[in-house]
Amino acid sequence: MNSFGRLYRLTTFGESHGAVIGGVIDGMPPCVRIDRDAIRTAMQRRRPGSSQLVSARNEADEVEFLSGLKDDVTLGTPIAFVIRNNDARSNDYSALEHSFRPNHADYTYFKKYGIRDARGGGRASARETACRVVAGALAAQVLAQRGIEIRAYVSGIGKYLLEEPYIFPDYEDIYSSAVRCPDKHLATLMTQLVEDCRSNGDSIGARVSCVIRGVPCGIGSPIYDKLQSALAAAMMSINAAKGFEYGIGFKAIESYGSEVIDSYVCEKGDNGLTLRTVSNHSGGIHGGISNGSDITLSVAFKPTPTLLRDMASYTDEGEATVIPAKGRHDPCVGIRAVPVVEAMASITILDALLQYHRPGEFSNLD
Amino acid sequence: MNSFGRLYRLTTFGESHGAVIGGVIDGMPPCVRIDRDAIRTAMQRRRPGSSQLVSARNEADEVEFLSGLKDDVTLGTPIAFVIRNNDARSNDYSALEHSFRPNHADYTYFKKYGIRDARGGGRASARETACRVVAGALAAQVLAQRGIEIRAYVSGIGKYLLEEPYIFPDYEDIYSSAVRCPDKHLATLMTQLVEDCRSNGDSIGARVSCVIRGVPCGIGSPIYDKLQSALAAAMMSINAAKGFEYGIGFKAIESYGSEVIDSYVCEKGDNGLTLRTVSNHSGGIHGGISNGSDITLSVAFKPTPTLLRDMASYTDEGEATVIPAKGRHDPCVGIRAVPVVEAMASITILDALLQYHRPGEFSNLD
Amino acid sequence: MNSFGRLYRLTTFGESHGAVIGGVIDGMPPCVRIDRDAIRTAMQRRRPGSSQLVSARNEADEVEFLSGLKDDVTLGTPIAFVIRNNDARSNDYSALEHSFRPNHADYTYFKKYGIRDARGGGRASARETACRVVAGALAAQVLAQRGIEIRAYVSGIGKYLLEEPYIFPDYEDIYSSAVRCPDKHLATLMTQLVEDCRSNGDSIGARVSCVIRGVPCGIGSPIYDKLQSALAAAMMSINAAKGFEYGIGFKAIESYGSEVIDSYVCEKGDNGLTLRTVSNHSGGIHGGISNGSDITLSVAFKPTPTLLRDMASYTDEGEATVIPAKGRHDPCVGIRAVPVVEAMASITILDALLQYHRPGEFSNLD
Amino acid sequence: MNSFGRLYRLTTFGESHGAVIGGVIDGMPPCVRIDRDAIRTAMQRRRPGSSQLVSARNEADEVEFLSGLKDDVTLGTPIAFVIRNNDARSNDYSALEHSFRPNHADYTYFKKYGIRDARGGGRASARETACRVVAGALAAQVLAQRGIEIRAYVSGIGKYLLEEPYIFPDYEDIYSSAVRCPDKHLATLMTQLVEDCRSNGDSIGARVSCVIRGVPCGIGSPIYDKLQSALAAAMMSINAAKGFEYGIGFKAIESYGSEVIDSYVCEKGDNGLTLRTVSNHSGGIHGGISNGSDITLSVAFKPTPTLLRDMASYTDEGEATVIPAKGRHDPCVGIRAVPVVEAMASITILDALLQYHRPGEFSNLD
Repeated sequence: MNSFGRLYRLTTFGESHGAVIGGVIDGMPPCVRIDRDAIRTAMQRRRPGSSQLVSARNEADEVEFLSGLKDDVTLGTPIAFVIRNNDARSNDYSALEHSFRPNHADYTYFKKYGIRDARGGGRASARETACRVVAGALAAQVLAQRGIEIRAYVSGIGKYLLEEPYIFPDYEDIYSSAVRCPDKHLATLMTQLVEDCRSNGDSIGARVSCVIRGVPCGIGSPIYDKLQSALAAAMMSINAAKGFEYGIGFKAIESYGSEVIDSYVCEKGDNGLTLRTVSNHSGGIHGGISNGSDITLSVAFKPTPTLLRDMASYTDEGEATVIPAKGRHDPCVGIRAVPVVEAMASITILDALLQYHRPGEFSNLD
Repeated sequence: MNSFGRLYRLTTFGESHGAVIGGVIDGMPPCVRIDRDAIRTAMQRRRPGSSQLVSARNEADEVEFLSGLKDDVTLGTPIAFVIRNNDARSNDYSALEHSFRPNHADYTYFKKYGIRDARGGGRASARETACRVVAGALAAQVLAQRGIEIRAYVSGIGKYLLEEPYIFPDYEDIYSSAVRCPDKHLATLMTQLVEDCRSNGDSIGARVSCVIRGVPCGIGSPIYDKLQSALAAAMMSINAAKGFEYGIGFKAIESYGSEVIDSYVCEKGDNGLTLRTVSNHSGGIHGGISNGSDITLSVAFKPTPTLLRDMASYTDEGEATVIPAKGRHDPCVGIRAVPVVEAMASITILDALLQYHRPGEFSNLD
Repeated sequence: MNSFGRLYRLTTFGESHGAVIGGVIDGMPPCVRIDRDAIRTAMQRRRPGSSQLVSARNEADEVEFLSGLKDDVTLGTPIAFVIRNNDARSNDYSALEHSFRPNHADYTYFKKYGIRDARGGGRASARETACRVVAGALAAQVLAQRGIEIRAYVSGIGKYLLEEPYIFPDYEDIYSSAVRCPDKHLATLMTQLVEDCRSNGDSIGARVSCVIRGVPCGIGSPIYDKLQSALAAAMMSINAAKGFEYGIGFKAIESYGSEVIDSYVCEKGDNGLTLRTVSNHSGGIHGGISNGSDITLSVAFKPTPTLLRDMASYTDEGEATVIPAKGRHDPCVGIRAVPVVEAMASITILDALLQYHRPGEFSNLD
Repeated sequence: MNSFGRLYRLTTFGESHGAVIGGVIDGMPPCVRIDRDAIRTAMQRRRPGSSQLVSARNEADEVEFLSGLKDDVTLGTPIAFVIRNNDARSNDYSALEHSFRPNHADYTYFKKYGIRDARGGGRASARETACRVVAGALAAQVLAQRGIEIRAYVSGIGKYLLEEPYIFPDYEDIYSSAVRCPDKHLATLMTQLVEDCRSNGDSIGARVSCVIRGVPCGIGSPIYDKLQSALAAAMMSINAAKGFEYGIGFKAIESYGSEVIDSYVCEKGDNGLTLRTVSNHSGGIHGGISNGSDITLSVAFKPTPTLLRDMASYTDEGEATVIPAKGRHDPCVGIRAVPVVEAMASITILDALLQYHRPGEFSNLD
């Protein structure tokens, strides 16, 4: 349904063109002084209008907290929040009230529920992901106290692909690029490609990569709750995601076992034996459980199906119709997915980590 | 933990070299006469020794049902079953009792639990997947009554890839091939490649594709319970899986929106309006909900890290050691994953479908 | 955590003296035109100040819906709502910021979370139950379409007990009584008793009974998801509840089997065989599954521990202190629990019922 | 469905007259050397034939473990077990194959599933509770390491009631009594009463009380996961349970607030401030969270509806029939429920406790 996570659980609500969207975070550890600036920064990275290459919808995306805080310190009770929808131009969508846009969820929602809110995609709009970024930003703050940091970035658009996708760039290097790619040369090429798409009213897919650093060995569960299963479910729940891989991912198909062995080195310390892998083809997980190396994953995003072109379709009466070229659109939705991938990674890892800690162990109060 | 699914829920147990492995299926619809031959056939497809290219471990893999049946008709109560481990040569593994094999779960289990059953990989062994095949075979029988059929097959090994991965082959075409690839030409090339790997004591990855046919429009949920999330979690829980994609998958990265629109055609029938997509770049799901087209997905499997080569590693005392080249191994584990992918697809789809049906609606009694 | 239910799931948030309390309802069937008057009526029945015998806190308790509706018709998406806290006199509680009231959750929250919102009991306040009434009122509207109706009422205060607790009174007969007891004679005696308690600054317990009428046979699950388990968990989650019983309940201890047999009568109809029990000692449930008779249950509520008397206690520094007699209080919290019991019954029954229905089957649109 | 618990989760299977019943325990902490004698003792306390007053069905109830152990030490993987059904006299039940016994689950199972296993009550038989005792005995062993001990006993049969129900008797005092009541005088009276019932072919209800000692303050959750909600759901899932109460329970109805205040005393120690209640009307829980005092609860059990008398009923064809007086029966099922109440308490408390501990913290290895 509309909840994600077990011990750190986000429930979201709201339609794209309703008064607000929002969420409830259950399981936030108590006694954590939250950093509102960090939340604001994360929201800025996702919001429409944040780059010249993304949808022109103009939302301040200020987060209003309704509960769970006392003087900005978490109480351990649910944290509810809302974000206002200010720039919802529903008139743009009036033409769609009775038509089904191809490759959108219009028709499937209608068949499942018998009703839908056509304005702005309603509940199926990527606007919902703003709530994930709020929950992710709070989770990231908790994780940072345990030395866990996460970076997502664009590692491919069109045929421009980062050869070695798993790096750990500074935020500055990611977000100074209109396409969120930390490699300056590739970023320039990608930017041009996306600009061309926009000019043509077309769109293009993208790959977002993510590195999770600092997860201690032993987090996650075997069999059906493998860490990679949880991460895959998290990432595939993001609008427009078409694929997930970790470690060597799809390159596995043509890899030989002898090429991708991650040999161990051994460290003996106060906590007993620690083995570390020299290489990281495994992507930081063995048998569903973190092995202490970076957890590395990538997500493929499809090109948005909202093109600035007239599209043939049908009405809910079964009449052929043409959906006119109009409305705002993102020529490359993968760009805006970057902070969402990071948020979902943060939520998933905190959810797994909380199984191993008492609530009070995350306090950042003196 | 060790359960998968909500309304059709499989819980498995057992270590690779214990007396038995087994499972409990909760939520099986009542009044279904089960087809033991179909279960036996599915088990044969997965079991070691079923092809000349897979592990030589010789298991009959007979399924013994303990509950939930009355004269082979389901009661709606839990169906428990066990499978005996007959050919568990634990001596092969005595060398491993205190050593951690690279790229295996030996070390992470040890760090998480402080103890492990080293014999045959213990709980982390792919032997657990036999239980998934049982639950999948029962699910498939229920799905078949609603006109839903599923096929998984190898669509790539090494650089040999099916160009158009999503077909719907006969079982005969899949399982007459030692590599489970229905394309005879490719199968020959793949077979040679895997044979070469075995000769060299090496291993190779594979891609398994799967087509789910006949799912009605409207199954699945939006936001966090998207059908693709459930399928991704299911597939990534299989041993050695490194990636998941559906529809255009990772090809999305270099696709233009204008190329991958799935236009609708409209049919009006007794049940009202039905839209069908002409092409199927979407992979049968829009917004997390089935759209009535084939659901198409692929899974990347890594080469098994068990090579017939000596491997450097460490003991649980931190001493450098060499793990000798010995034991049985699969040069291409993806081959044996084929019925497991099919089983996990069956379980996932039945779990989603049960939300829309009363228990009695799946009866196959007269 | 802060969610109740599986298929009809309420998540609540908010502290007693924060700006708002609220909730998110996930799983509300689509295409239901909601009845705002019915919600308002239910809220009036619970709110402080609704009877001369309950807390004088004056809250309008207007429900503001944030999502999930289109022109008052449900979309099948989450329904979020907030209720403003207007009359939160936090100064009344400043004396309590560092003291632990006996028999309250002050100390246990502090030990669990290391922090608490002392104002008005924070999250532990019975104010949270207002959110349950919203979700219950929506559920009741859905249930009514399937012919299911629910009535809760006070059936005992002090030694004044309804001899035959399970009746099905009109709302008018319940709510015209200041103590919510439909028996006019008992109600008069109870009212005097509660008045006396208030005069003395004391409080008294109560029994609330509830009858659920119209549930078809076959709802609920055996073993661990028995309907009585779900109802017990629901009722025991209400503030101040100390006991739950159904059918003959605690009278079972001194009942002989021969006295409490519910013989069957048989009706043959179009739907096949129907058995009905002549008597109803069973309380409408056999083996965890509804049998078609009224489901009958009672809940015992303790006297509120907030007395208008000085109370000895300790501060969070371990200093002995006296909590002064001050603040508003309910001399009999069971009275205000009546609509909450009804709400929790509605939520629980709808949650169980949804397993047997497709989403669209609850539409009340033409 | 057929699972109980979240972090310590029991899934059971098996029909009363199938070959076996059994269960899977998921979440058992690793590195615990299990005590098979303790399990055997617990099983002996529950099994039919264990007292002269309970069903004469003669079962050895030997537990056979299938997985999750290595030399009797837990691996952290699922522990599956089976118990053979040896003395299943199914012929006793052939008369019932097409008849519905009043006050049993025969009819509701039939209406829900359209099929049932009539032999011995099938899945609805109290035989399933043997599996709960296995899981409870393992849980108790883990709890004992943290200083938590649990005692259940009969505190009432007919009008013979322990005045102060919450004591903490030795096992010897409980189980040396045929009625499991530690008060010798009452036990004698109860024994005579139950003997009389058996002579008359009648049955009688009972109250089982339970004290949970040593739970530290701060365990459990507020709002919907209150400890009393979890305990109530656990107890009401036991066959024949009709009511649950904790602390003052149903006596609350006639209690004044001023009578039932649990004043605090304060201890300052190394772990900071500790408040303890002098009295324990609260039953060890405030706001859903343990307060460090004994958790005290009682469960009412109905008289078994299986009488040694002919009973009028109907067949599944709707024909009037008489169910003959025959078969084994328990004149007071509450007696055999004692170890089951204790088991469900152990499972529930361990499940709540595991949220606060890392897996390794329960090891009892040197």
